[in-house]
Amino acid sequence: MQDFSKIRFVALDADDTLWMNEPIFVKTQDACRDIADEFIADPKELDEKLYEYEKKNLHLFGYGVKGFVLSMIETIIELSSGQVSGTQIQRIIDLGKEMLEHPVHLLETVEDSVKVLAEHYTLLCITKGDLFDQENKIAHSGIAQHFDIVEVVSEKNEQTYSDLLKRHHIPADQFLMAGNSLKSDVLPVLQAGGSAIHIPYHTTWEMEKVSAHQSAGYEYLEFGRKSELVDLLGIS
Amino acid sequence: MQDFSKIRFVALDADDTLWMNEPIFVKTQDACRDIADEFIADPKELDEKLYEYEKKNLHLFGYGVKGFVLSMIETIIELSSGQVSGTQIQRIIDLGKEMLEHPVHLLETVEDSVKVLAEHYTLLCITKGDLFDQENKIAHSGIAQHFDIVEVVSEKNEQTYSDLLKRHHIPADQFLMAGNSLKSDVLPVLQAGGSAIHIPYHTTWEMEKVSAHQSAGYEYLEFGRKSELVDLLGIS
Repeated sequence: MQDFSKIRFVALDADDTLWMNEPIFVKTQDACRDIADEFIADPKELDEKLYEYEKKNLHLFGYGVKGFVLSMIETIIELSSGQVSGTQIQRIIDLGKEMLEHPVHLLETVEDSVKVLAEHYTLLCITKGDLFDQENKIAHSGIAQHFDIVEVVSEKNEQTYSDLLKRHHIPADQFLMAGNSLKSDVLPVLQAGGSAIHIPYHTTWEMEKVSAHQSAGYEYLEFGRKSELVDLLGIS
Repeated sequence: MQDFSKIRFVALDADDTLWMNEPIFVKTQDACRDIADEFIADPKELDEKLYEYEKKNLHLFGYGVKGFVLSMIETIIELSSGQVSGTQIQRIIDLGKEMLEHPVHLLETVEDSVKVLAEHYTLLCITKGDLFDQENKIAHSGIAQHFDIVEVVSEKNEQTYSDLLKRHHIPADQFLMAGNSLKSDVLPVLQAGGSAIHIPYHTTWEMEKVSAHQSAGYEYLEFGRKSELVDLLGIS
């Protein structure tokens, strides 16, 4: 059992930790599969080709909706051998806009937990993705006022967390991060000397999956709901 | 004449202040005009329609290459009444990727000026656009090590600068910003109580233009080359 008595700074991931995100991508991908239907024999072709493009484009596009839409357009152009129509591509862009305009749905217990955490800790939100989109979501979340520090980062690795702790003068042993991704919210934080708690969300994006090997040697807790985080820290 | 003796923090814009950027957009737009040629009677139609889409999409896409590419695709879909081919759209996406992969070309005198400024001031880089793209450019600029603070922001208005000064505990009267955009780098800084210097770049993006009315009542200097900034601050 980890000792959290030293913790003074609690950081929370945003997408699929504070609010629902992955299901919006899944729903859009379903709609794009319908558009691609006339060009493919097996619906899985779209998912596989899209994942290929997303991996290939990651070093240029980073994470977020705009890069997802561009990769999806490339996917359907290839699967249709260039036969996809302008109208169909416009439909994909419109689906992307719907994602960006999607209302922020806070996950269960988030509102209360964040409020309680903010009363006892310096509270951070550390989120990855499009700067513009993430700032919009935080602004429309209704809980922005509880966060002392909001950081939108382009990648979540050990270096990101080390730099961030240094920049805000946060001693690593006083820092706890909680989020739904082992790869982004847990392992790199442990590597940077902090503590971390995994709060799984039912859907996990392909690239977020982490092998047992990568998690080896690091201790972290896995949690079901954010209220348990409050319980654990003994502040409820 | 403004008094710069109090200045302890110097901030520089990046795109078209530290390195060439706008000409890359202009070149891409030229190439897209060639693609659209078969669908339009007058080449100006592309520029006008694109500008319409960029304005309309700004609240969703923010600034940067990915949003530019998506707006360009929408423009050509509309101008071609949906007749643009998948292959032509792939060409537009490829042009966008070339923009993202474009090597960073520092503007004349930048390398020396930044080095000298860093010796005498806490040096900041404050840039607007896609987080991922901007971080990539800074990392590949060869001058990243001279900046004490790098901030990628989604918008540059008075609030942005006020928040940023507060976050870094910078007194406004010790802060000087220099950049190529009156609208983004000069006026909002003056409104936030700081000092600002305009270093024009020969091409200015449509949305960056500022009317005489908006500049009224605020004093700023206009400069030709960054070496003059070093001269002005008396540190060369």
